[in-house]
Amino acid sequence: MNTFGRIYRLTTFGESHGEAIGGIIDGCPPGIELNFEQIQFELDRRKPGQSRIVTQRKESDTVKFLSGIFEGKTTGTPIGFIIPNENQKSKDYSHIEDVFRPSHADFTYQNKYGIRDYRGGGRSSARETANWVVGGAIARQILFGIKINAYVSSVGDLFLEKPYQALDFSKTESTIVRCPDEEIAEQMIRKIEEIRKAGDTIGGTVTCVIQNFPVGLGEPVFDKLHARLGQAMLSINAVKGFEYGSGFCGARMKGSEHNDLFNEDGSTKSNLSGGIQGGISNGMDIYFRVAFKPVATIMQEQETINSKGEPVKMQGKGRHDPCVVPRAVPIVEALAAMVLLDFVLLDK
Amino acid sequence: MNTFGRIYRLTTFGESHGEAIGGIIDGCPPGIELNFEQIQFELDRRKPGQSRIVTQRKESDTVKFLSGIFEGKTTGTPIGFIIPNENQKSKDYSHIEDVFRPSHADFTYQNKYGIRDYRGGGRSSARETANWVVGGAIARQILFGIKINAYVSSVGDLFLEKPYQALDFSKTESTIVRCPDEEIAEQMIRKIEEIRKAGDTIGGTVTCVIQNFPVGLGEPVFDKLHARLGQAMLSINAVKGFEYGSGFCGARMKGSEHNDLFNEDGSTKSNLSGGIQGGISNGMDIYFRVAFKPVATIMQEQETINSKGEPVKMQGKGRHDPCVVPRAVPIVEALAAMVLLDFVLLDK
Amino acid sequence: MNTFGRIYRLTTFGESHGEAIGGIIDGCPPGIELNFEQIQFELDRRKPGQSRIVTQRKESDTVKFLSGIFEGKTTGTPIGFIIPNENQKSKDYSHIEDVFRPSHADFTYQNKYGIRDYRGGGRSSARETANWVVGGAIARQILFGIKINAYVSSVGDLFLEKPYQALDFSKTESTIVRCPDEEIAEQMIRKIEEIRKAGDTIGGTVTCVIQNFPVGLGEPVFDKLHARLGQAMLSINAVKGFEYGSGFCGARMKGSEHNDLFNEDGSTKSNLSGGIQGGISNGMDIYFRVAFKPVATIMQEQETINSKGEPVKMQGKGRHDPCVVPRAVPIVEALAAMVLLDFVLLDK
Amino acid sequence: MNTFGRIYRLTTFGESHGEAIGGIIDGCPPGIELNFEQIQFELDRRKPGQSRIVTQRKESDTVKFLSGIFEGKTTGTPIGFIIPNENQKSKDYSHIEDVFRPSHADFTYQNKYGIRDYRGGGRSSARETANWVVGGAIARQILFGIKINAYVSSVGDLFLEKPYQALDFSKTESTIVRCPDEEIAEQMIRKIEEIRKAGDTIGGTVTCVIQNFPVGLGEPVFDKLHARLGQAMLSINAVKGFEYGSGFCGARMKGSEHNDLFNEDGSTKSNLSGGIQGGISNGMDIYFRVAFKPVATIMQEQETINSKGEPVKMQGKGRHDPCVVPRAVPIVEALAAMVLLDFVLLDK
Repeated sequence: MNTFGRIYRLTTFGESHGEAIGGIIDGCPPGIELNFEQIQFELDRRKPGQSRIVTQRKESDTVKFLSGIFEGKTTGTPIGFIIPNENQKSKDYSHIEDVFRPSHADFTYQNKYGIRDYRGGGRSSARETANWVVGGAIARQILFGIKINAYVSSVGDLFLEKPYQALDFSKTESTIVRCPDEEIAEQMIRKIEEIRKAGDTIGGTVTCVIQNFPVGLGEPVFDKLHARLGQAMLSINAVKGFEYGSGFCGARMKGSEHNDLFNEDGSTKSNLSGGIQGGISNGMDIYFRVAFKPVATIMQEQETINSKGEPVKMQGKGRHDPCVVPRAVPIVEALAAMVLLDFVLLDK
Repeated sequence: MNTFGRIYRLTTFGESHGEAIGGIIDGCPPGIELNFEQIQFELDRRKPGQSRIVTQRKESDTVKFLSGIFEGKTTGTPIGFIIPNENQKSKDYSHIEDVFRPSHADFTYQNKYGIRDYRGGGRSSARETANWVVGGAIARQILFGIKINAYVSSVGDLFLEKPYQALDFSKTESTIVRCPDEEIAEQMIRKIEEIRKAGDTIGGTVTCVIQNFPVGLGEPVFDKLHARLGQAMLSINAVKGFEYGSGFCGARMKGSEHNDLFNEDGSTKSNLSGGIQGGISNGMDIYFRVAFKPVATIMQEQETINSKGEPVKMQGKGRHDPCVVPRAVPIVEALAAMVLLDFVLLDK
Repeated sequence: MNTFGRIYRLTTFGESHGEAIGGIIDGCPPGIELNFEQIQFELDRRKPGQSRIVTQRKESDTVKFLSGIFEGKTTGTPIGFIIPNENQKSKDYSHIEDVFRPSHADFTYQNKYGIRDYRGGGRSSARETANWVVGGAIARQILFGIKINAYVSSVGDLFLEKPYQALDFSKTESTIVRCPDEEIAEQMIRKIEEIRKAGDTIGGTVTCVIQNFPVGLGEPVFDKLHARLGQAMLSINAVKGFEYGSGFCGARMKGSEHNDLFNEDGSTKSNLSGGIQGGISNGMDIYFRVAFKPVATIMQEQETINSKGEPVKMQGKGRHDPCVVPRAVPIVEALAAMVLLDFVLLDK
Repeated sequence: MNTFGRIYRLTTFGESHGEAIGGIIDGCPPGIELNFEQIQFELDRRKPGQSRIVTQRKESDTVKFLSGIFEGKTTGTPIGFIIPNENQKSKDYSHIEDVFRPSHADFTYQNKYGIRDYRGGGRSSARETANWVVGGAIARQILFGIKINAYVSSVGDLFLEKPYQALDFSKTESTIVRCPDEEIAEQMIRKIEEIRKAGDTIGGTVTCVIQNFPVGLGEPVFDKLHARLGQAMLSINAVKGFEYGSGFCGARMKGSEHNDLFNEDGSTKSNLSGGIQGGISNGMDIYFRVAFKPVATIMQEQETINSKGEPVKMQGKGRHDPCVVPRAVPIVEALAAMVLLDFVLLDK
């Protein structure tokens, strides 16, 4: 249940308030020279405290590899790693020990396990996603030549309307909101700052574009490429929807409008299919969009119940994200990389 | 790759133009008395030729069970079944032997396998979904008391705007388009008839509502209940998107609007969460929406290429659906039933 | 639970007294030209009634393929097949409906499932192994060049003492007991005939030799090549033990005697290792031995109990094997072929 | 590939000469109060340097848990743990950097991975089994009431001939060779000391007895209880054979001798079946025997080849076990516990 992937498999452990989180990457091919700075760079893109529009919690998120690497290269044996938890402020959470926070997993956890580590959401903590970023950062280095670019495509009602072809992905990292259009990015940043000042949170979407992915990968029935991508994205905390290619818009169209006609080289004139036909990549760009709900922890007073079912009032404390999408960008890319690598390895 | 589920597992085989399709259901609990008429009823809801707005191909889709059942009850051993193919008109397909149809899987199949059974799309044929309906119909009988109701919520730009709480699901089957609102249903039917006359096709959405599902099922990290539902729905031919609860709308909202406040009994006042928190069911209704693109085979002339990359003109022949959503309704329900049963059995 | 293998996967169904048994082979590479006569030949080696020293039940065991094959070649999609049951003499079993036969699975089945198809042992029937022979016969054709030869190496106390290197495997099929040494074969046949006349049964062993298997296949920890072979062999009905290379004899030896010293080409001077080091093939012959207990159904009167726990007397009826090893030879080869192919495909 | 089990799953990592080895236990039920001293006790039974007849390497093998446990109880989330490597004497291995040791995995590893961490056998190191002991020690605490007792039943030609029923398992730990018969134990210890003085090694067998295991667990076809036990035991380094119940002796017997007749309560008068019928437990004691070859590293000079295929002479250095069976006893028990727990959880 805590394993992701079939050939390239990441198994993870860890709660936000234990000594460390970590994981094991199994199925990594041998002989790959790893760029450790690049792995840490991806972790830094996800870490808290990186800018003024994300949670101000401070945690360096430094990964330490324990096995599977010898003289800088993968050996083909499992790669064990840990990320120490530096910020175990359990006291931050004592006020919610006995309270079910609205739209959090407290209530469902209590019902599922009958026991709950109230210190930080247990496995439902988004801290788990740091493990995924490690798995994805290594996958990415193996997927040499395949480009994976995610970016923030909306915050609340603010949409980046331009098609991805009109964007310069090299600019994504240059704004703290990770939107490659500077003008919209500015508006998004201002929006998030307003929301934070109001003690509120806001949702958004992330779009991801995959280029140079080979034709013919994916399975025709239950392991469709887009179904695996969808499952992966729906595993990220706060995700409520996934669409690829024409997505929900496609459901409003006619076949005569929607069909992608071929060029003579097998590429297509349009790409409403989103690079996948019948679950299998067709060599065109793969693109998809992921919807994130607003973070449930708000700094306003809310009514809720405690574990006895008594009504209580609560107010979020601690340091939470007013909007998750800027930090979700590297997570979307990491999961996409792991899914893609799995299909590449399966195909061999 | 052709197996669905972890405990209740359906493995399938079959091309639309072989002798039969079929499957094996493994992990079915013993001692369940099966209602075979109900299983056939579900197949009839999916079968071609059932009404004037679906493909006019005729096929009875009669399932034959070969094992795992003794004196009308499941024995706990694998249930083998076949559905004979009655309509193997291979000649219908001779005109496309060498042609890549736009927005079909022909091109990706040829690239993946290097060999192609051009007689009907091989495993990409929607005929495969009849196998799923068998697996789902049995799952449903085991999920006694849990209600699974899917219906057509849009055809092209025609939307059923009413929330599901305002609908009478018992009316879904009374219209051939499977929309429980008679007025909208009439409009949808007219729309599909127009589209068909124009030789075109149109997309749509299916909404599914699950009621009485117990609290505490689903896994917190990689096997989130909604991620498994999403993966299942994205496995259906022509699906381009999946959202649950507030979905893509949720990405436009604030936390103060989106949070579902608790009642004292642990239920929630609103249900934007869609019955799932942190990947685990919370006892509220689970609901999700699935987007289907328009069928790629249209009866209009289109330009395309053949396997040598030469431009050719082609026109759809045979008998295809102008809109897949009416026949998709039982498929959505069947997959949902299998996913839910899997979690119920995993929990035990 | 009814699936064998990881990449080349056989999922099976069927009871001996339903309409058919069968299976689905998933993960078969595309473009393999199949020799159907060879597949049927392997089934004939396993079928009942083939000689005077096996059960006299008559059943043709004819396999019928339903999918995954087009114009004589595999397409890469799942291969569905059935083997009709021609010999459903349910009356043969009515005398044991309520009786637990000694050393049969009746008692454990009743306890596990609470329901029992008394007509033939349900899934514990050795008829299931016909499905495995189909899966193995196809695997073998894909493993072109790799030789898999099993033979009967003992019946009761009669042992074929010669090492396998001194045997001519082409003679295995020329004796009905499948022992390639004619003299010992004669003795074995006489022994089995005596045992049958006495209404008794007898155990034996099968040895299997694999030649030309490439170096470097197998996994170092949990999927050791010999562990997978052992699991496979221990899945065959009546098997009580598995050893490879020096086996139980190796446990009596010293390291200075047991080590296989290298030749300069990487081959070894001796081969007590049995072709596998650390779970991975080393290019030498792989060989192993499988122990089969005597068949539990004897034609002598035995005391037993019925499902109420009352003592009853019973006597085997029907037509049973006095010794299973002659018919086990193709089963051992089939499972070995599937295990080996799985590792070959995993390696790619 | 580095995951063991289906519901209770242990995934491991680590080389003997990295910073730590470790693993993740997934699927552990919540709410189990753990006895940490007992876990460390099991590790101490396996650790090097524990007595004069095992390797004199010193390593404390102290396990550190990182997640999945809160206030001394399991939480149902994955249990991550590490065991630091205290004895990374890489210099011990420099003499074999370029040499293929006879009957070691050096040659097969080099061929499989093309890269080799020569510092200690990589994943083929028996140090990995410390991870298994952790997984087994926790499994054992969950299997409350089920007794698992393994012991050394032979060293070379010295056999403990008494049936297990005549033994007092509480005496197993009182001799350093882990044989519960004091007289034979003395002989075994003397034997091993002689062997060590000669710079040689010797094989042996371990017998394991499982009592109080419930009836009805195991699967009838591919996941037979004994097939999973066999696969587990064959995963242990140096194992060459596995037999259960009558084992290889059963292959010499007649059905009239071998059948276990029932008592009126469903128990059997004899137990040649070894507690399992048709792959499913029958409530009687389960017992099996595992054969270990002699350790390949001997302190005598041997001829071998280097990676260029040139003949070289080598002599074992470092501190190796003259006989593995005393330290194998807790490993056999640990794997048995994990297999049994998996079936208990699957049954629920």
